[in-house]
Amino acid sequence: MWRLIKGSRAIVCVCTMVISATCSATMQHDPLSSWNDCPAKSAIIDFVQRVTTVDAPDFVPLSERIAVFDNDGCLWSEKPIYFQLQFAIDRIKQLAPNHPEWRHRQPFKSVLEDDQETLAKSGMEGLLKLVMASHAEMTTDEFASIVKDWLNTAHHPRFQRRYHELVFQPMLELLVYLRANGFKTYITSGGGIEFLRVFAEEVYDIPPEQVIGSSIKTNFELRNGVPVIMRLPEINFIDDKEGKPIAINKFIGRRPIAAFGNSDGDLQMLQWTDARKGLSFCLLVHHTDAEREWAYDRKSHIGRLDNALDWAKEHHWTIVDMKQDWNAVYPQPDAGN
Amino acid sequence: MWRLIKGSRAIVCVCTMVISATCSATMQHDPLSSWNDCPAKSAIIDFVQRVTTVDAPDFVPLSERIAVFDNDGCLWSEKPIYFQLQFAIDRIKQLAPNHPEWRHRQPFKSVLEDDQETLAKSGMEGLLKLVMASHAEMTTDEFASIVKDWLNTAHHPRFQRRYHELVFQPMLELLVYLRANGFKTYITSGGGIEFLRVFAEEVYDIPPEQVIGSSIKTNFELRNGVPVIMRLPEINFIDDKEGKPIAINKFIGRRPIAAFGNSDGDLQMLQWTDARKGLSFCLLVHHTDAEREWAYDRKSHIGRLDNALDWAKEHHWTIVDMKQDWNAVYPQPDAGN
Repeated sequence: MWRLIKGSRAIVCVCTMVISATCSATMQHDPLSSWNDCPAKSAIIDFVQRVTTVDAPDFVPLSERIAVFDNDGCLWSEKPIYFQLQFAIDRIKQLAPNHPEWRHRQPFKSVLEDDQETLAKSGMEGLLKLVMASHAEMTTDEFASIVKDWLNTAHHPRFQRRYHELVFQPMLELLVYLRANGFKTYITSGGGIEFLRVFAEEVYDIPPEQVIGSSIKTNFELRNGVPVIMRLPEINFIDDKEGKPIAINKFIGRRPIAAFGNSDGDLQMLQWTDARKGLSFCLLVHHTDAEREWAYDRKSHIGRLDNALDWAKEHHWTIVDMKQDWNAVYPQPDAGN
Repeated sequence: MWRLIKGSRAIVCVCTMVISATCSATMQHDPLSSWNDCPAKSAIIDFVQRVTTVDAPDFVPLSERIAVFDNDGCLWSEKPIYFQLQFAIDRIKQLAPNHPEWRHRQPFKSVLEDDQETLAKSGMEGLLKLVMASHAEMTTDEFASIVKDWLNTAHHPRFQRRYHELVFQPMLELLVYLRANGFKTYITSGGGIEFLRVFAEEVYDIPPEQVIGSSIKTNFELRNGVPVIMRLPEINFIDDKEGKPIAINKFIGRRPIAAFGNSDGDLQMLQWTDARKGLSFCLLVHHTDAEREWAYDRKSHIGRLDNALDWAKEHHWTIVDMKQDWNAVYPQPDAGN
């Protein structure tokens, strides 16, 4: 019995080596080709080589190769407003005729008046209020269907592309590179867990069970004998700041060995990863490219990078200078996204 | 980019076929050898063959082969009291000298007086109160260490074996059999998520990220600059009854295609699985073997099987008659457990 279990583990290891070897063979190009030669790229490759070299002092077994990624501003853009907030706005506007009281109540008022400055100031909690009001009182299946429709039709105001096309090409390559080296990649986002799961598998190749995010409460009930899960208009958990390591501990139950973020909301997740016994890797994406994307940090209402930037410098974490380090930001429009 | 992602998926598929083929080759014996020839065994094998046969009408892709297992009474015994409750009792007794007020307050009073009947009546909520009082106010790492020590030293009163040796051999074989067929196996237990994770990987080969359970709240904080996660004396979530499908939706984000339980606490999880579009499999372990384990169902304080038994019969779910269907209950003591 136990021999059988140990045997199947060995087979998985062998297969992973097969995967790695196959990937090495097919990747005759640079697996991180959208990254310029820069300290950040070298640091990533060095880290991966150290934790994957068998018998080396920093070797990490497959089961512990957990990498966590923030989503907004780390895997895709978050300007001019969080994409999920835009989804909420579109939905609120759609539902507004049935809710006259929204005209006088924030954050709904600013949504209906297109007052994005006031809206942005309401922060993550404001976003979650809109999410609750606009997306509750329906089943999980119905919600997924609404999000899917929105992703397939809505376009970003600046780039005129669908929102899930505005993912960072260098980060897509990083996800593939880490997985080719036996990492299990997770999303840990302040965004809604059920919102993210609609596109995470198709866009990032990250399955639903590896997506962690904020959530509203749900209720299980039988409707005419058919079980459904209803979304309730009440916050369950906000996966931001201290919430991130708490959620990582709850969902994964292991300390990550690598963490990727871009804002103060990611600081605690990176601290938790950094404090692991043994080698770990912490990276912040610094938005420095006003031309191809946006440039913002300490004073931004969305994706503020202030304390985390100081902490990163003090603790020698890797900081990506988007303008300098990336030779591409988004995938080519014809890349099949 | 996208071709690369699709390519790596194909490689994973090929590897899984390699795993399956290797397992078939090495398993010259019956992979479910502790199961007698019985309708339950036939139903399991038939289901697995149908969902894994490519191009067959019931074929299920690898990514959707999710199987969820209750723990208490399904993967290991739960008598005379939940094993985690015994852990709590041992811990409460250890801490009692510092808590004189416990002598007059339930459920602590019954713990200190060895009044197991009163204690059993306090049910899952009583258990969780004891867990909170006895296991909070410490870090997650400290808690894991205490549980590990207990598992290595405590012995079951009837069988005089360590608690994690009292797992069901037929269910261990079932876990291996499902995984060999590409299933991802999860625990969804009313027991504590951090309690379960201490032994689930070693005993069931189920990694922490595939363990779902009840939880208390936690807090992230820096202690002298070192991040820790503290366990707070407050219930976060009870993963029982309606809580099970809610937690499955939250943690996994996909509907399972197979669910295994043994009590009314598992009914909603099985209903949720059963209502999946496409083929699914629901199984209840019926404890009918007073000689080798225990015989109990509708009137038991612990692991009551009443409504779920009726529902299972009406909906033609698979019911295991432990006495008739299993030729072994626990692993042999010399099996390396």
